[in-house]
Amino acid sequence: MKFDILTLFPAMFEGPLTESIIKRAIEAGTIEIGLHNIRDWALDKHATADDAPYGGGAGMVMKVEPLAAAIEAVKEKRPASRVIMTTPCGRPFNHQVARELSTEEGLIIVCGRYEGVDERVRTLFVDDEISLGDFVLTGGELAAMVIVDAVSRLVPGVLGHNDSALYDSFADGLLEYPQYTRPPEFRGLKVPDVLLSGNHAEIAKWRRKESILRTMASRPELLDRIELSKADKKLIGEAGK
Amino acid sequence: MKFDILTLFPAMFEGPLTESIIKRAIEAGTIEIGLHNIRDWALDKHATADDAPYGGGAGMVMKVEPLAAAIEAVKEKRPASRVIMTTPCGRPFNHQVARELSTEEGLIIVCGRYEGVDERVRTLFVDDEISLGDFVLTGGELAAMVIVDAVSRLVPGVLGHNDSALYDSFADGLLEYPQYTRPPEFRGLKVPDVLLSGNHAEIAKWRRKESILRTMASRPELLDRIELSKADKKLIGEAGK
Repeated sequence: MKFDILTLFPAMFEGPLTESIIKRAIEAGTIEIGLHNIRDWALDKHATADDAPYGGGAGMVMKVEPLAAAIEAVKEKRPASRVIMTTPCGRPFNHQVARELSTEEGLIIVCGRYEGVDERVRTLFVDDEISLGDFVLTGGELAAMVIVDAVSRLVPGVLGHNDSALYDSFADGLLEYPQYTRPPEFRGLKVPDVLLSGNHAEIAKWRRKESILRTMASRPELLDRIELSKADKKLIGEAGK
Repeated sequence: MKFDILTLFPAMFEGPLTESIIKRAIEAGTIEIGLHNIRDWALDKHATADDAPYGGGAGMVMKVEPLAAAIEAVKEKRPASRVIMTTPCGRPFNHQVARELSTEEGLIIVCGRYEGVDERVRTLFVDDEISLGDFVLTGGELAAMVIVDAVSRLVPGVLGHNDSALYDSFADGLLEYPQYTRPPEFRGLKVPDVLLSGNHAEIAKWRRKESILRTMASRPELLDRIELSKADKKLIGEAGK
């Protein structure tokens, strides 16, 4: 899968894309990431990419011409890629959106600055606006990194067998169960006996129960979107005793 | 404000924290960011920070001892800081949570890997669990960067007058109005006349109306949380004609 990122701050991406799973996926050729500095497409010798807003007000607005030229140049090389802009006005990003995007041939991600991007960029070039959540960032770059990360790990071949996405939170609509590793006791807190029992059926039941209980406690609204089985209801009933 | 980040991948933070507004805030001393490698607190000579999960299953779980030592060492220097863990099981991050966190003296952010952190870390040390959204990342590092960014810009003195947080999306519960800058016409698309009129009262009315209409179109549920004034309702009524 090919990601092309259009940004005023390409250096921001250096650390995040050169570590861990994303780094390995780039090295393996499973994903490819192109960083493009919007300033390279500015029209004047000062490489101006923003200007004061019409109608007045605080902040600067990203100009349409450099972005138009940048998007069109990248699109020419990647005609099948979908153009995404990260903005608080977009549709909220979640696991389903990540899954949907992971089936695209490529994504061209335009990093807005949240003071604003000229509206005509949106009208003329953007296929999809995505919001990371109901908060404001100093720029769209971190949102783009999150999208690249969350989408990449769903691209076949990016995660090894050992860190499969199958057991993720949200993959089955529930939060993840508690995890424990050695030592068996730490400052008086013991690992639950069942996890040391070697009884795989009991372990699976305990984990499912804990997932449901944790979701009920922290994010009950997630349960509205899934159907609990009879066995699930029995598990929670037992937990109530 | 002081941020301390506990991570297995400190190099990931290099780019994001060395650009733009966050960089300036660090240079000005308004915020301070300490990066701490959890491996430095590992007990063995291989600096082991993770281990296989009790009860079996995919992935590795972050061990409790190195994290306990790391958190306690940082806490000793920053006793007033709140310990946050980024995890899909936490409360969802949003503008209100960012505002709340921006009033803390400091934050110690533990970057989980989403295969899991030993449950006893949560029980013993974590004051607050925060989820960036209903999606899964390869690690908590990007979530930590987003929190640092969104919280920092609400810390007094970080944003200059020119990029004030007062006009942000969500600051008044609405999405932001469309922005335009030069040129007045691009590929047949003109800047709305009102923005060129110099009539500030009319510009303010138009922007308010566009904010409300955009919110109604993209995120109607946000309107349930705020009260529209009579003047607002009149503005939308006019737009309907």
